[in-house]
Amino acid sequence: MLSDGHNEGVNLYISFRLRRGQPEVKLMKSQRYQRGFKKLEEVNKKGIDDLIQLMDDLAPDLATYVIEFAYGDVYTRPGLDPRQRELCIISAITALGGKEQQLKDHIQAAVNVGCTKAEIVETLIMMAVYAGFPAAINAIKSAKEVLCV
Amino acid sequence: MLSDGHNEGVNLYISFRLRRGQPEVKLMKSQRYQRGFKKLEEVNKKGIDDLIQLMDDLAPDLATYVIEFAYGDVYTRPGLDPRQRELCIISAITALGGKEQQLKDHIQAAVNVGCTKAEIVETLIMMAVYAGFPAAINAIKSAKEVLCV
Amino acid sequence: MLSDGHNEGVNLYISFRLRRGQPEVKLMKSQRYQRGFKKLEEVNKKGIDDLIQLMDDLAPDLATYVIEFAYGDVYTRPGLDPRQRELCIISAITALGGKEQQLKDHIQAAVNVGCTKAEIVETLIMMAVYAGFPAAINAIKSAKEVLCV
Amino acid sequence: MLSDGHNEGVNLYISFRLRRGQPEVKLMKSQRYQRGFKKLEEVNKKGIDDLIQLMDDLAPDLATYVIEFAYGDVYTRPGLDPRQRELCIISAITALGGKEQQLKDHIQAAVNVGCTKAEIVETLIMMAVYAGFPAAINAIKSAKEVLCV
Amino acid sequence: MLSDGHNEGVNLYISFRLRRGQPEVKLMKSQRYQRGFKKLEEVNKKGIDDLIQLMDDLAPDLATYVIEFAYGDVYTRPGLDPRQRELCIISAITALGGKEQQLKDHIQAAVNVGCTKAEIVETLIMMAVYAGFPAAINAIKSAKEVLCV
Amino acid sequence: MLSDGHNEGVNLYISFRLRRGQPEVKLMKSQRYQRGFKKLEEVNKKGIDDLIQLMDDLAPDLATYVIEFAYGDVYTRPGLDPRQRELCIISAITALGGKEQQLKDHIQAAVNVGCTKAEIVETLIMMAVYAGFPAAINAIKSAKEVLCV
Repeated sequence: MLSDGHNEGVNLYISFRLRRGQPEVKLMKSQRYQRGFKKLEEVNKKGIDDLIQLMDDLAPDLATYVIEFAYGDVYTRPGLDPRQRELCIISAITALGGKEQQLKDHIQAAVNVGCTKAEIVETLIMMAVYAGFPAAINAIKSAKEVLCV
Repeated sequence: MLSDGHNEGVNLYISFRLRRGQPEVKLMKSQRYQRGFKKLEEVNKKGIDDLIQLMDDLAPDLATYVIEFAYGDVYTRPGLDPRQRELCIISAITALGGKEQQLKDHIQAAVNVGCTKAEIVETLIMMAVYAGFPAAINAIKSAKEVLCV
Repeated sequence: MLSDGHNEGVNLYISFRLRRGQPEVKLMKSQRYQRGFKKLEEVNKKGIDDLIQLMDDLAPDLATYVIEFAYGDVYTRPGLDPRQRELCIISAITALGGKEQQLKDHIQAAVNVGCTKAEIVETLIMMAVYAGFPAAINAIKSAKEVLCV
Repeated sequence: MLSDGHNEGVNLYISFRLRRGQPEVKLMKSQRYQRGFKKLEEVNKKGIDDLIQLMDDLAPDLATYVIEFAYGDVYTRPGLDPRQRELCIISAITALGGKEQQLKDHIQAAVNVGCTKAEIVETLIMMAVYAGFPAAINAIKSAKEVLCV
Repeated sequence: MLSDGHNEGVNLYISFRLRRGQPEVKLMKSQRYQRGFKKLEEVNKKGIDDLIQLMDDLAPDLATYVIEFAYGDVYTRPGLDPRQRELCIISAITALGGKEQQLKDHIQAAVNVGCTKAEIVETLIMMAVYAGFPAAINAIKSAKEVLCV
Repeated sequence: MLSDGHNEGVNLYISFRLRRGQPEVKLMKSQRYQRGFKKLEEVNKKGIDDLIQLMDDLAPDLATYVIEFAYGDVYTRPGLDPRQRELCIISAITALGGKEQQLKDHIQAAVNVGCTKAEIVETLIMMAVYAGFPAAINAIKSAKEVLCV
């Protein structure tokens, strides 16, 4: 009997019994969680600690979904390398506007996965064309806090 | 005497006289315009025709700014190749939402500059994480009209 | 006894009795409604008919709020003339994106209150700087449907 | 003669004379204002004080419109109880993004009208699906400042 | 040996072998998928068919994530009943703007889970306060297509 | 030979030789730059210094584009006077949301070009109708920091 239960996302267990009556086997974390956590560690170790701490009092499941879904399911998909992913994420967050912390986290992540400072800046400058100058200027301001320390 | 005049963007001339009294020399298009036009032709020839036709009755200068500024100044900058640029532009337009025509134009452009269908789809799927599922689903819908003909 | 009741916005009556026992006097529409309706008639008579018809089956109160609040309270305030108001409204709706019908209604309204075609186009071109080129291009597209018939 | 005048929203009087020549009767606040103020006091007393103080130097009429229109006209309508209203408002403000103060005010209001912490958090987590993870994470951050003191 | 593999989301299998050498057992769909699919069937059966068909040519995994994550993980969480969820989702999508299809799907879903027409309309009217009148008016227009047939 | 080169935006030179072999003439800044700089100085001298300083370490070209394109090409166009432009810009930035610094810069600019405090406040109040009350309230908050010192 296999049971990932409703709370898989919450408890981070996949538990199953080979037969009714036999002892239950628990895998401490789902493979999606493990895969996502490993990827997020590669990409932005500091970001993951901040996220888990931020969510911990109030919404630990949201941190779990970030790890399982955003990183374990989506980010680890083949087809785009992490450098391309981070430049796209930075573009989207700049276009959305008003999400400084996430923008800074992903600018750091972009550096961590090997994007050059020039590529990041180039991406942000290009956003002036698509999302307007105020969005691009604010993004450069966030980038300075990460890249010019 | 060099004069790019106020209307450089509008008239697409750089005119100058070597001396007062001598005949004026007109360069029919600024180099920024020529450079942008050439790039836009490479990237999405059909899009440029549509744009110029769309703007022509009412706002031809906006088409000129697209060519001079968006393509002549920004898109032709070194530091990001066209494939990276188009995936970033697609990400931004998906995040902004409600801009189907531009999204389709840039999905076509992405194909034209050598992005694979898989890379484009991967980029759009990732947007579910950053801009929400409705944005990503609508973007896939636009992509189908371009990629599945 | 004066009673504008909870449903003033809904029933569009202000009713009062000079004395208990005397016949009730009903003013068929609140003065806010009348003032807003008159203004909206000046500004965009066709728009008001469309709005009331659109809302009528399902949310007539929303049409009432447009008339009472948006026009009766806000638009009729002194301090900005209708031409200035319409250019500002057009700017905001262009920046918000994805609201074609309202943009077209207010471009028509701008014409009705005396804005020139050139002022309207100039406003929309300027939006490329603040809200990005896709927003400005889409707005010109909407403007063509109103201004180039 | 009944007169709510153009400045009803501003002066907060409904004044009328039973007959020309008789003394004018002034009701100090419109019933819409009174109804809205009472509701806002129930929902978020601290928020109302902050709002009036914030607007007072520069735009007192905007505070009046919040009270008269947002609360006196809309919030007090039947059909949705305050708990449902606050969860919907929180959802909308999270989706809009970049409006931390209003989000915190309405999270406090949600608590005041009887929403549980779990319902509020559940609503914010769900926003990851519709508005993206960055919007949801930022909303949880705002919620912590209100709910985890 | 338990393996949900990288492609759990894609292949929709959880496969395991009780012992090396024994035949592999495949569960055709993950429990998250099954749970999400069942919920989505309850909530909006037509929507699910449309979604799967829409994504099928190009991005079937995005449909899978909708089912597994949006419905299997998030929507089925306890803490909010489906009626509360749908009104919150409608609020968020109205605030985001420009997502008519999803708005109509969730207005239909709201009806399916037992929201009254009045509750839905009330929610949309309230959005005028938080997201502006154009957003609310457009949402009523979408609602008419669903509710007034 | 006239050469505005690819890096006109970057190097801010237009260089030309009257004849091959003769010494090259360099104009230190393009006329677009000079025209934009002059306009920006009139409109908001402090803003320009802040902008150049902000961009200088990381993205000086973005400051150049602001000056050349946003001011040299667009803002200096005939058809709208600076007072109308600033009220439109303020409207757009308020509608976009989450761009406090640019909003404050343009409120200051509006004052500098001759808009009255009343016109600015009137514009922001009107945004409650089109972009929602939270956007308008936040804009008044920013305006207080500029106008009530």
